[in-house]
Parts: sequence; C-alpha cells; structure tokens
Amino acid sequence: MIENKPTRTELSEIGEFGLIDMLTKNIKLKNESTVKGVGDDAAVLDFKDKQILITKDLLIEGVHFNLTYAPLKHLGYKAAAVNISDIVAMNGTPRQLLVGLGASNRFSVEALEEIYKGIYQACEQYNVDLVGGDTVSSTGGLFISVTAIGDANAEDVVYRDTAKVNDLVVVSGDLGGAYAGLLLLEREKETYKADPNMQPDLDGYDYILGRQLKPEARVDVLRLLKGAGVKPTSMIDISDGLASEVTHICKKSKVGCAIYEDKIPVDVQTVQVAEEFKLDPTTCALNGGEDYELLFTIKQADFEKLKDVEGISVVGHIMEENAGINLISRSGASVPITSQGWNAFK
Amino acid sequence: MIENKPTRTELSEIGEFGLIDMLTKNIKLKNESTVKGVGDDAAVLDFKDKQILITKDLLIEGVHFNLTYAPLKHLGYKAAAVNISDIVAMNGTPRQLLVGLGASNRFSVEALEEIYKGIYQACEQYNVDLVGGDTVSSTGGLFISVTAIGDANAEDVVYRDTAKVNDLVVVSGDLGGAYAGLLLLEREKETYKADPNMQPDLDGYDYILGRQLKPEARVDVLRLLKGAGVKPTSMIDISDGLASEVTHICKKSKVGCAIYEDKIPVDVQTVQVAEEFKLDPTTCALNGGEDYELLFTIKQADFEKLKDVEGISVVGHIMEENAGINLISRSGASVPITSQGWNAFK
Repeated sequence: MIENKPTRTELSEIGEFGLIDMLTKNIKLKNESTVKGVGDDAAVLDFKDKQILITKDLLIEGVHFNLTYAPLKHLGYKAAAVNISDIVAMNGTPRQLLVGLGASNRFSVEALEEIYKGIYQACEQYNVDLVGGDTVSSTGGLFISVTAIGDANAEDVVYRDTAKVNDLVVVSGDLGGAYAGLLLLEREKETYKADPNMQPDLDGYDYILGRQLKPEARVDVLRLLKGAGVKPTSMIDISDGLASEVTHICKKSKVGCAIYEDKIPVDVQTVQVAEEFKLDPTTCALNGGEDYELLFTIKQADFEKLKDVEGISVVGHIMEENAGINLISRSGASVPITSQGWNAFK
Repeated sequence: MIENKPTRTELSEIGEFGLIDMLTKNIKLKNESTVKGVGDDAAVLDFKDKQILITKDLLIEGVHFNLTYAPLKHLGYKAAAVNISDIVAMNGTPRQLLVGLGASNRFSVEALEEIYKGIYQACEQYNVDLVGGDTVSSTGGLFISVTAIGDANAEDVVYRDTAKVNDLVVVSGDLGGAYAGLLLLEREKETYKADPNMQPDLDGYDYILGRQLKPEARVDVLRLLKGAGVKPTSMIDISDGLASEVTHICKKSKVGCAIYEDKIPVDVQTVQVAEEFKLDPTTCALNGGEDYELLFTIKQADFEKLKDVEGISVVGHIMEENAGINLISRSGASVPITSQGWNAFK
C-alpha cells in the first residue's frame, strides 16, 4: 500500500510571525466580552458587572500525554477542555482561551496546525474565543500551557470550601473510564513496541478510549442544574480521581464525609478493563483521574429536584469534620480515603 | 574554603500539594479586584467597570535563558516582568499573575523556591497578586509560562494599530543594552567552559548585565505620561528590538515612518561592548531585543508637554504608508528597516 506522505514544512521556514498569522488568521470572535483578541501586546476583555474566573493548566509530553497514541488534534482539544472544565467547576461560563505552545524542531508546521485544529474545535464546542498566547521553540519535546477565562454573576460562583454538614455528595457521569482507557493504550503501545506488525486490539472500547483521549468539560451538567433550580453548595472537577477531589472539598470546607462504594458510577467497559488488569474498578474511580466529571454537594432539600435528572449520582453525604473522610465499602466497612494527590514528580 | 552545601529536597519528597502549599502559603493579596486567589479550580476577579488586559508569555531553558548565568531568582523576576511589560504596553495597570512551572527532577524544591522568590519580588515591585497556576514535572528542563492580567478604563487602552501620520515616534530609556549584556554573559560562559578556574571579567558592566538578567516593566513611564497629560496614540513594548516593534506599529496602523539613527538612545556600556564585539551599536538597538522599553507615538501637539521629561527620546515620525519604514542613518541615507521578527525556531 502506497501512502500519500503528508507535506512537512519546517518551523524555521515560516518564522514566528508567519506561524502566528497562519494559526490565528481564521479566528472569528464569538463573545461580546472579547473586545480585542490576538494581535496586540495583550487581549482586551470587558465583562461589565460579571466576575471573572481564570485558570491555567499545563500539559507536558511524556508526563500528561504520549504522542505514540494521542492524536495531535485530540491533544489540542483536551488541552482546551481540561482548562474549560476548571471554569465549569466554578459554575462559570467559559469565554476565552490563551494558548502557549512550546515545540521542538521535531514538530512541523503541519503538526502545530493539527494541535490548533483541536483547540479550535474545542472553541466551537464550548463557544469560546482564542484571544492570545505565545508559540516558542522548546529544547525538550512538546508542551501546551492553556489559560481559560470565564464569567459568572458574583452570586452564582461556587467554591470548593463551602460544603455543609448533611449536604449530599453528587458526581456527574461515570468515573475511572479515562484511567481504564489509559491502561489499554499503554498496553497496546508495549505490544506495538514488541512487534510493530501487531494490529491494535482496541475494539469495543471506544467509550473509555474517548474518555482518555478526548474528555469533555461538563457545561451540560451546569445547564441541567440550572434548569432544575439547584445551585451546588460546593463544586470541583474530577481531574485527579474522586479520592483526591472529595478530600479537597472536605479539607477546604472543614467537614468529613461518607462515600458509598456501591453508589460510585462506573461504566461497564471500565469494569471489564479493570478486571483484565486485575484491578478493583473502585480503585480506578477513586484514584484514576482525568475523568473531568463534576463533584459537587447539594442541600438535602434539593434532592427532590434532581432525582429524575439523568447522568448524575448521589454517592454520599457530608458529615462533621471529626467523622473523617471515609469510603463505606460494599460489605459495609468504613475505610478512610487517603490521597496525596497525583504526585506529578514521582 | 569550605562552603555550606545548601539543603536539597527532592520534588518527589514533598508531593504536588505540599509543593503548592509551600510556594503559595505566604501570599497576601493586594488588589481589590482579586476576589479569590490560589486555592480553587480558578481564581475569581472583579474589575467592576474596567476593561481587562490579559497576556501570556513563555520562557524556556536553553531558548530564552541559560541557567549557567541566569540566577533562578532573577529568572522568576524576569518571567513576571516581561509579562507585566505587555500589560504596561496597553497603558494598563498590572493586577494579577498566574504562573505555570515545568521542572524536571534535576530541580530541587529549593530551586523552585528561588524562582518563586523572584516572582514574589516582582509582585511586590509591581503591586501584583499571584492568583493561580500549575506546577508540573517536565521531561526536558525548565520552562515558565506566565499569564499577566491588568485593567484600564476603556478610554485609556492604547493599541498598536492607531498611530497616525505626523505623530512623533518616542522610546523610553535606552536600547541594545540587554543584548550587549547577553553577549558578555555568553562570552564568559565560553571562557568558563574552557577553563573553570578563570574568574569572570564582568566589572564595570553592571548596568547592561542587569538589563539582560533583571529587566523592568516601565510602569514609571506610564506615570510620567499621565502626569504630563499625554496619552500615546499607539504603543508596544520592545521585546524583539526596535526594528521589529516599529514595523508592528506601522504595519498594523497602515503607516510608514522615518527613524533617525542619531536619535536612538544607546547607553555608553552598550557602545563599549558593541565595539569589543565589532558590532554596530545601532544594530544592537534595532535587532537586539529584550530591552522591555516602551515604543509609542504621540501627537505633535503633545511634544511640548514631554520635552522636559527625562528618560524618553523622540526618535522619528510617522509618515504615509507608501513612504515605507526607514532608518535615516547618521550620513543622511534612508535605509529600509526590515524585520522578520525574532525567529524562535532557527
């Protein structure tokens, strides 16, 4: 089989200004709050009487992604989505992105265009404007630094330190899938390294592969909550696994909680893969990370309003601080949830 | 001589959350617009009726800095200052910073603390709040991604595309010094590599070394302009050299200009070093970069108000677009100023 070899343009051929022009020339601004986007020393934004939410996350090759299996376009999409997820976790509306990209000469102009295609796809999906950034050469691989900006009325912002005793603990979607997808991709990588003629065996796992490669920020969950007339009492997005995030909410709010193992939503594909790898699916959900679902607390009185809403699960309740942060296992045993967070330096 | 060996704590010992706590625990917020800083999914800001300016620049080891001669603390300061300079170049007041840091295991906790010391020093200097960011492990050296946020009344924002024919072209401070400092540091590095017992020979060059290692954002120039009752008609900061920046202003504003070589302010140390390296000092000023001075245009009618202000120089005037962008040399010859910008990928 003869493949059409794709064109490769070196970054040095096009130069910094040429590259920026090329990557940003088709931007059409969508948000009224974007007064001036790319093209000056700084972007100019105007949010009138709204509060502004701002967050920054980095994605590093070899640490947060592996180009053996992460398509560049998905990578761009994911870099945008995980930052937008932080705005969503404050109950805000995402509005703008700034993107910093460091790439070594190993990457062609076309490769950077692919990454930007993914970023622009996320901008479409979430109705967000790309308003600035920086593209530089790097001596070591690829990294992406995204800053996301959103807005909210002051009274609508939801923090993580405001959970109250007796509140219910709720998660959106299902957990552990992104980690199960990563396990599969890592296994296929090893198989491929051992024998490049082996065909990847990923059939039937589309859902969890998508969870790993192209996660979504749950703006739709915010709409459901608003539609039901419920404002969470606290909220965080699940980037590091349920254990880590529920610990953040409890420690910041100075409360304890009980999470019921049998209530944690886990997809059937996640269970299958966990079993293949001889892992407990609950461990994947608690410690896997990268699901970008929302973890939030609501007043008990709001339970009625949400009980028929699909795709959210009550997994536990908030208790006094001295009760600790515990998982109630299927057998009824209470086990302390411990989390040092994702130790990125190990 | 026995040196006290500094303590070295591995990043893996302290963990992600421990590190973030350590680096951010002493933050005291200074700006009313900072509603909530570090510690949630996103920072929360409130600018009331002001417009918001936002910018992002990256600094990469081996590309933008070399740790052989750049002290970590200065590096943190510089990373903050060059981003603040972009806010200043919009005629805005810097207010907040977000810092993303990627560091390999080669860096200790103490090394990251040094970088943060520099960032906090800049926060003090410019009355800015550190409100968020991300610290991750990197496979290839050190990189710093800073996002700076500022505010301005809508009518005070100065863009780069609004220079008008007959406006005067003005620069603050002097140019080429940062590049001259870099030349010296690079030479000393080579000398040191050849013979580590050689003492560095940098006496008498404090000024230009400071220009390279610890540049300042010219918030003081904005105050002088405001005090004199002058609002520039266009403005940009000089990060890539005068040639590149004046080209940006002219192309964006669809005008031409004449810049007079004998009016370009160059410090005596810069001239000395240029001569040592057999370079034309004007070339250092035009193409050297990293001076972070301000380049702006003013109405001719405002010249009287500024003529006694120290530390600013009128270097030329804006012309019709078809006149081109020209340097009028000391001999009176008109030479087109060309600039491909700093090609970061070469």
